[in-house]
Amino acid sequence: MRRLIHALCALVCLLAAPAFAEDGYDLWLRYKPLASAEPLPRAIVAQDNTPTVKAAVAELQRGLSGLSGRRISVAKNVSAPSVVLTRLTTPEAGLGNEGYMIREGRQNGQPVVRIRANSDIGLLYGAFAYLRRIQTGATTDTTDAPKVRLRLLNHWDNLDGTVERGYAGASLWDWWRLPDLQDPRYTDYARANASIGINGTVLNNVNAKAASLTAPYLDKAAVLADTFRPYGIRIYLSARFSAPIELGGLKTADPLDPAVRAWWKAKADEIYAKIPDFGGFLVKANSEGQPGPQDYGRTHEDGANMLAEALGNRGVVMWRAFVYKAEVADDRHKQAYSEFKPHDGQFAPNVLVQVKNGAIDFQPREPFHPLFGAMPKTPLMMEFQITKEYLGFATHLAYLGQYYEETLRADTFQNGQTGWSVARVVEGEHHALSGMAGVANIGTDRNWSGSHFDQANWYAFGRLAWNPQGSAHDIATEWAKMTFTPDPRFVTPVVALMMRSRETVADYMTPLGLHHLMDTGHHYGPGPWVDNLGRPDWNPVYYHKADDKGIGFDRTRTGSDALSQYDLQAQKFWADPKSMDERYLLWFHHLSWDYKTRSGRPLWDELVLTYDKGAKEAAAMQQTWAEMKPYVDAERFKAIASTLRIQAREAKWWRDASIAYFQSKSGRPLPAGVAAPEKSLDYYKSLTFPYAPGHH
Amino acid sequence: MRRLIHALCALVCLLAAPAFAEDGYDLWLRYKPLASAEPLPRAIVAQDNTPTVKAAVAELQRGLSGLSGRRISVAKNVSAPSVVLTRLTTPEAGLGNEGYMIREGRQNGQPVVRIRANSDIGLLYGAFAYLRRIQTGATTDTTDAPKVRLRLLNHWDNLDGTVERGYAGASLWDWWRLPDLQDPRYTDYARANASIGINGTVLNNVNAKAASLTAPYLDKAAVLADTFRPYGIRIYLSARFSAPIELGGLKTADPLDPAVRAWWKAKADEIYAKIPDFGGFLVKANSEGQPGPQDYGRTHEDGANMLAEALGNRGVVMWRAFVYKAEVADDRHKQAYSEFKPHDGQFAPNVLVQVKNGAIDFQPREPFHPLFGAMPKTPLMMEFQITKEYLGFATHLAYLGQYYEETLRADTFQNGQTGWSVARVVEGEHHALSGMAGVANIGTDRNWSGSHFDQANWYAFGRLAWNPQGSAHDIATEWAKMTFTPDPRFVTPVVALMMRSRETVADYMTPLGLHHLMDTGHHYGPGPWVDNLGRPDWNPVYYHKADDKGIGFDRTRTGSDALSQYDLQAQKFWADPKSMDERYLLWFHHLSWDYKTRSGRPLWDELVLTYDKGAKEAAAMQQTWAEMKPYVDAERFKAIASTLRIQAREAKWWRDASIAYFQSKSGRPLPAGVAAPEKSLDYYKSLTFPYAPGHH
Repeated sequence: MRRLIHALCALVCLLAAPAFAEDGYDLWLRYKPLASAEPLPRAIVAQDNTPTVKAAVAELQRGLSGLSGRRISVAKNVSAPSVVLTRLTTPEAGLGNEGYMIREGRQNGQPVVRIRANSDIGLLYGAFAYLRRIQTGATTDTTDAPKVRLRLLNHWDNLDGTVERGYAGASLWDWWRLPDLQDPRYTDYARANASIGINGTVLNNVNAKAASLTAPYLDKAAVLADTFRPYGIRIYLSARFSAPIELGGLKTADPLDPAVRAWWKAKADEIYAKIPDFGGFLVKANSEGQPGPQDYGRTHEDGANMLAEALGNRGVVMWRAFVYKAEVADDRHKQAYSEFKPHDGQFAPNVLVQVKNGAIDFQPREPFHPLFGAMPKTPLMMEFQITKEYLGFATHLAYLGQYYEETLRADTFQNGQTGWSVARVVEGEHHALSGMAGVANIGTDRNWSGSHFDQANWYAFGRLAWNPQGSAHDIATEWAKMTFTPDPRFVTPVVALMMRSRETVADYMTPLGLHHLMDTGHHYGPGPWVDNLGRPDWNPVYYHKADDKGIGFDRTRTGSDALSQYDLQAQKFWADPKSMDERYLLWFHHLSWDYKTRSGRPLWDELVLTYDKGAKEAAAMQQTWAEMKPYVDAERFKAIASTLRIQAREAKWWRDASIAYFQSKSGRPLPAGVAAPEKSLDYYKSLTFPYAPGHH
Repeated sequence: MRRLIHALCALVCLLAAPAFAEDGYDLWLRYKPLASAEPLPRAIVAQDNTPTVKAAVAELQRGLSGLSGRRISVAKNVSAPSVVLTRLTTPEAGLGNEGYMIREGRQNGQPVVRIRANSDIGLLYGAFAYLRRIQTGATTDTTDAPKVRLRLLNHWDNLDGTVERGYAGASLWDWWRLPDLQDPRYTDYARANASIGINGTVLNNVNAKAASLTAPYLDKAAVLADTFRPYGIRIYLSARFSAPIELGGLKTADPLDPAVRAWWKAKADEIYAKIPDFGGFLVKANSEGQPGPQDYGRTHEDGANMLAEALGNRGVVMWRAFVYKAEVADDRHKQAYSEFKPHDGQFAPNVLVQVKNGAIDFQPREPFHPLFGAMPKTPLMMEFQITKEYLGFATHLAYLGQYYEETLRADTFQNGQTGWSVARVVEGEHHALSGMAGVANIGTDRNWSGSHFDQANWYAFGRLAWNPQGSAHDIATEWAKMTFTPDPRFVTPVVALMMRSRETVADYMTPLGLHHLMDTGHHYGPGPWVDNLGRPDWNPVYYHKADDKGIGFDRTRTGSDALSQYDLQAQKFWADPKSMDERYLLWFHHLSWDYKTRSGRPLWDELVLTYDKGAKEAAAMQQTWAEMKPYVDAERFKAIASTLRIQAREAKWWRDASIAYFQSKSGRPLPAGVAAPEKSLDYYKSLTFPYAPGHH
């Protein structure tokens, strides 16, 4: 018998090797054996057997057995060191519906870790938190609850399997083979999201097709909802505003038309019959060609409130503020504010207005969106982009936790008061609803996100949605420890690299507050010269306004005056080029090439040197990574080295093309010691990329 | 120490469980422990250390350790029971460049298995063959060599990651991140192909983009070539005939123009500088809108020979015979023959003409293509479709080995002689070149082929390309044993199911020789009513010609006379409806609804009953599969049950829609006991599938 077991284990040892390919599929849930001798519980005790409690028990079993290398049993009573899951019989107010408490103690003479919550989902979150704390070396005892109610991924996934701005393969949703074929990956998706507190997912692109609201697609969505439900994740759908015409055969989608209202009400009822916990609708209306209430002379709140009424108290409407009129206004920066601020307080109670982090479009750096300081009577939902449309796709390392933190910590001076950070606005203390959405970076790539480091952006989004006042540095540290190794020789340099990485990208792409310089349509690579698109505010030249005299977008009173959309105190951040953070300089000011920057150098020199610095830093990241080789498996080491090589090459391309172009405007020599662009401006202009991904 | 090892193994046992998810990724190379007590070698002895020999050693190590549950060592000399790999110093003529011998024997007092070959690739093929023989219970000793020289996959993969007629996710080739990022999956692709003898792969769609011939894409292709080379797999590219215009800036692509010829010669040289063993070009010219030599008043051989000259003795041109003129002829069936037969013998020595298995387009059943009997002076390469464009995509079970065998065994009576089976023509005994191509069913789906049973079609294609006279039944048996279990309680019923499955599909889609009844464009589901496409021969009604009197395409002398393109003796197979195989009946004959079939029933009744039988058989497949539950892992069992459920539902849809439509023509009652279609003909006509996969 002993020999048999031994032979069996030897066999498994042998066979395990190839199966253990470190392809990134396990994300931060790898549960590799801990080096520390800290004794771990050997049993899990749970009274209930609901699907969510079962998920918590299974995760603890998987996690603790991986971390301890022992079999972990499930018991009804404590007779060994145990984790005990208990739903509180008397609700603990501070925990709300999703919070948890973890406490070490003793029971029946055994050491126990008690996870307690008011709800099953609190227990699941507590289980994940406990596993995270073990892996990251945190103390066991903690109490935590989310500060934001809706913590959602937005999938810009199309029904044909493509993903708009997706760089991680095709859509995870196999619409074609649903509802019959249920990919086990859907469960791992739910596990990963629950582990970071995400509690909702919008399945389809905001550029929505009406077909997603038809019965066959609702049946497919219902299967996903069933799979996600035990993990506390509700599904939502992007709704096409003109669906009553396309599906209902009506002549209009006017939100005040009774037949239209009845159609949406019936549609909502149909959805709830199939998906009882359906979360609600996300709507992109009257923006970039999408239909909306303005097509009928109605307002955004007419549209949003009509859908809100159809959902009733069963779900929410997330109405996007990313709008710009068909007629080109003086500055796109101002449009969302102009359209939405006057309607503050006029939305139904189950409507949130979903606002991108900045007023343009997910640029490598943007000042926070002025709406966050301007609509105190409306719950404003944050929309971050996790997928890196403008930050180098999945092949550049740019840790967005640092970006999100920068936005969330900015003070809006809402109502003229200090201390109203974007985070606090998003937490929505005045409102029953609050929310944060992240445009997902997830696809069918085996590593989910297109590159290993992009997993960190998914992770950071979830953690910051749970607590918008969290620390990007701490979150990066957690992620690195769980995803690779807790060895400080790895964690310290890699976290430093991550924290710097987004700044590096901004430097080689859009330094000093420049923005929207990416090439046409696909947004891959530099295109500062592009000036031939259908409307002026689609062109990079509209945004940088470089000529032989200077560069930058004047958004002060002498220019578009977009600055005035911020509170007076917030305006002070950026009003004076001399005192402001120069990383936003050309976002707000048009300045002479001779303008003297804080370094003492003229603007032209500063711009060139910043491009140069960014490209050099991108190249240097490869060296840092090379030194990590002893701490990383060969497979991920090599894959990351490859993407860093791509990034270094493309950073140099950005630097060279941008310097070549802006030099053609400034007509000035490069600062001493700065290498000239490798090729001619015409060469850079000649490059085309018809097969760039994510452009659907 | 012992406790440590034990703990370690226990740990691995625990951890191994989730990693062992049976997701189908391992294909037929799972190497699970054998139940039999047959002692297996414990060491591998190889003298050389070339990349190909290393691959053979690694595969033997992986395979034997999996199958035996023991560690397998690599040695320079025999001191334990061993597999000995030896390249023959005196070439053995019968083995050619790719064959092998496997013999049991003794050496240094130890039992050995000797694998010998003239070449390294022969050793790799021998290693795979040995592992296959162990797993399928065959005797060890064997000698084998391929009967066909070029055994190729054709990927209809686009540069944007979509796959034309692909139902298994996106393209495996990550063009965007190549050449930097090298997916480890490329190596597993090469292993899988080498294991079944495939020795070449055309990377891009025959509807080719010129961009695939540009330097950046050649650099990407070169990385794939480097990865595949140790596995004996050469890469080929589909060439766009107009590339000299699009890439070279020439005004013409006329194959007789000296500048065009020089451009292709220079392009070939550029390719060989990057890929020294580049295989050559596949060309779809003057077909379905693709450019070609006829645009300049030249012939197919003018085009093919020009490219052949550019390649010289370095590579081959595979010139596709799937052509039909812009002007609609009387019967598309006749066009390839009419265009190519007159040019037999006029192609350069390094040109093969690649002919689809039948004259229409990969229908569920087609008589063999008449060209196979008609071009004795030209090497004819077979083109089979592995992806199931017309046989239910990846969600219907249809084992194509049986289809391929049916075609390959047909007698062409080439030159009026008996015994010239299609297989023998393809083997090309008169020619230096021979080839078989399969349009790949491979994509990024974790199980490679979109469904587990579709892996069998990839497998069967490879095995039949190696030996076109092989047995589809034997191949299915091999595959089932290696992919699931050798347990006869599984193998016997499942192989029977597989062997019947394609007939079942033909019955519920296109019974009695009907063909091309699939719905518009995407070819998903029934569309026998479609009559509105751009040209008559794109419409199903063109192919079935049903009216109130009868049905079928008269291809005899009273009709299009396509039958006359076959040898007189082959014509006898199909000339007389009374004596012929009725599974081809309406392919060649237009008959009255009252026509009395061999069963004694009128044609109308026979047609309806065949549809009914197909749908019933599809439903019954689910029961057979349900009985396999004890022998299959839960994951694959469930996935296959899901696809069989889809198939049963869609088979009924095919049956119902087809009967409803043809009844609207025949005006006749259903035979007694046959259920009426579930819904109205208008309902079936109303269905649309804008997001059907593979339609790019």
